[in-house]
Amino acid sequence: MSLFAAADAIGLVTFAVSGFLMGVRKGLDLLGIVIAAFLTALGGGVIRDVIVGRMPIAFTEGSVLLFVVAGIVLALSLKLHKKERPERFAIFIVMDSIGLVAFAITGALVGIEAKFNLFGVMLLAFMTAVGGGMLRDMMVNEVPIVLTSDFYGTIALLIALLVYLCSLVGCLGTFTLMSIAAGALFLRLLAYYKKWQLPKLGG
Amino acid sequence: MSLFAAADAIGLVTFAVSGFLMGVRKGLDLLGIVIAAFLTALGGGVIRDVIVGRMPIAFTEGSVLLFVVAGIVLALSLKLHKKERPERFAIFIVMDSIGLVAFAITGALVGIEAKFNLFGVMLLAFMTAVGGGMLRDMMVNEVPIVLTSDFYGTIALLIALLVYLCSLVGCLGTFTLMSIAAGALFLRLLAYYKKWQLPKLGG
Amino acid sequence: MSLFAAADAIGLVTFAVSGFLMGVRKGLDLLGIVIAAFLTALGGGVIRDVIVGRMPIAFTEGSVLLFVVAGIVLALSLKLHKKERPERFAIFIVMDSIGLVAFAITGALVGIEAKFNLFGVMLLAFMTAVGGGMLRDMMVNEVPIVLTSDFYGTIALLIALLVYLCSLVGCLGTFTLMSIAAGALFLRLLAYYKKWQLPKLGG
Repeated sequence: MSLFAAADAIGLVTFAVSGFLMGVRKGLDLLGIVIAAFLTALGGGVIRDVIVGRMPIAFTEGSVLLFVVAGIVLALSLKLHKKERPERFAIFIVMDSIGLVAFAITGALVGIEAKFNLFGVMLLAFMTAVGGGMLRDMMVNEVPIVLTSDFYGTIALLIALLVYLCSLVGCLGTFTLMSIAAGALFLRLLAYYKKWQLPKLGG
Repeated sequence: MSLFAAADAIGLVTFAVSGFLMGVRKGLDLLGIVIAAFLTALGGGVIRDVIVGRMPIAFTEGSVLLFVVAGIVLALSLKLHKKERPERFAIFIVMDSIGLVAFAITGALVGIEAKFNLFGVMLLAFMTAVGGGMLRDMMVNEVPIVLTSDFYGTIALLIALLVYLCSLVGCLGTFTLMSIAAGALFLRLLAYYKKWQLPKLGG
Repeated sequence: MSLFAAADAIGLVTFAVSGFLMGVRKGLDLLGIVIAAFLTALGGGVIRDVIVGRMPIAFTEGSVLLFVVAGIVLALSLKLHKKERPERFAIFIVMDSIGLVAFAITGALVGIEAKFNLFGVMLLAFMTAVGGGMLRDMMVNEVPIVLTSDFYGTIALLIALLVYLCSLVGCLGTFTLMSIAAGALFLRLLAYYKKWQLPKLGG
């Protein structure tokens, strides 16, 4: 398994865990919890595939499903829902950031392949990376957290911008992607621990 | 009209009534109520068709629309919105369960035709059967009831599992489908009157 | 630029401003505000394009994006978010109504081209015109305002009905479309200043 496929798998597992935790917290029953886990992990990719008009990978390849199941089993066996705010554990933050970066890169690449313009590529990277979490939040009637706080969705947009520029000047390759991924991962973790926030206009 | 087409029509009428009632209860105006009825009845099928990439039936065939209109007219002429909790009338429960089963079977068959894996077939059956109701609940800012209580969405998943297994071993035919439908209908009604609930993990 | 393209551009700018204002009001951060502006302006068109199965225009043509950016820049430079209820300024109402009419006509024409039935054409006109605003409201957990009050979505449905009838009798041309647009615009402004409301059934 390549490094990139590993990052993708880490993202699926982590996003499934985050959906699972939200489901428990919102009083969903077992079916609702499982759906929240699947929706959070796979929702972004399904939106991406529907937009570019291809059959969602999640419905034809079994492998991605295994990682979601793994996330649910992991959360259950570690009894994560009995712990306080497991989303703030350092290991969770790191894994979640790896998933964010991997999903954003996949989304950007699919957008470039579909010959989207810069906006399309940024939107596809954004939806792939945070669309599942937004669906999760909207489903349980929360304003998507990515819209109100934290320096998170911006990372996906920055990644898309860089990937798009690299593709324009023809330097898109494994090395460039790895550098972008490493830089974005560093930036995300820095933003988390420095508690960076985007400005608001209200007040 | 075959028995299956009749079950499908019953589902459309009942789901339209349920959308109508939710619209009245949430204080929507006449346009909002009509949209809630159409969305609840047709939303699941439209999601299914968009996912498999075919033109939504509701937009090209007029017959399905007539059943939605019939549901609205029925609810209006019986003044259902003046009654207390018409969703709990025995006749409503039976008709709603028939719709659940018919829609889940259609969704599963479309998924098998599109060569989806087990997950894809289950998701398509689930979305076809309960997607309209979920859209209805999310539109008026309720957590979809199918995620929090009752033994309802699980029926759609069980149906999809059985239909998928039958298709795998090559025994998918009218008789098998009828048996699955009858069994699922019985199970749903039993679950309703016994007040079965899936467990929750919170607390 | 034709009169119709101008109306479309006015719609994009105005809808972007309305998303911007909602984002500020709901306490979103800068990223959330920008996304709310893009979603409100482009969401309806993207839904329309996904339903008829073509690549969303917003992702392949850059021009529509410029109008959204123009809306955001306009709102920022006029400091609209510091003013009280700018959505009620006469100029905003007129521009918003022009957008409503232009988007509804585009949606209806795309539906006719896709050989939809009357329902499909009406739904496509409705979703194109008010879908972006509904997504905006659902995203921040409001019941879509178009469902609860005002004589607004009904205009889109009336436009679709008229365009569909014209296409049936073969009199669809620039003059007919302009007449429908002018009549609908007049009706919308009349409805606004007369405070027309659709009836509710509750109580």
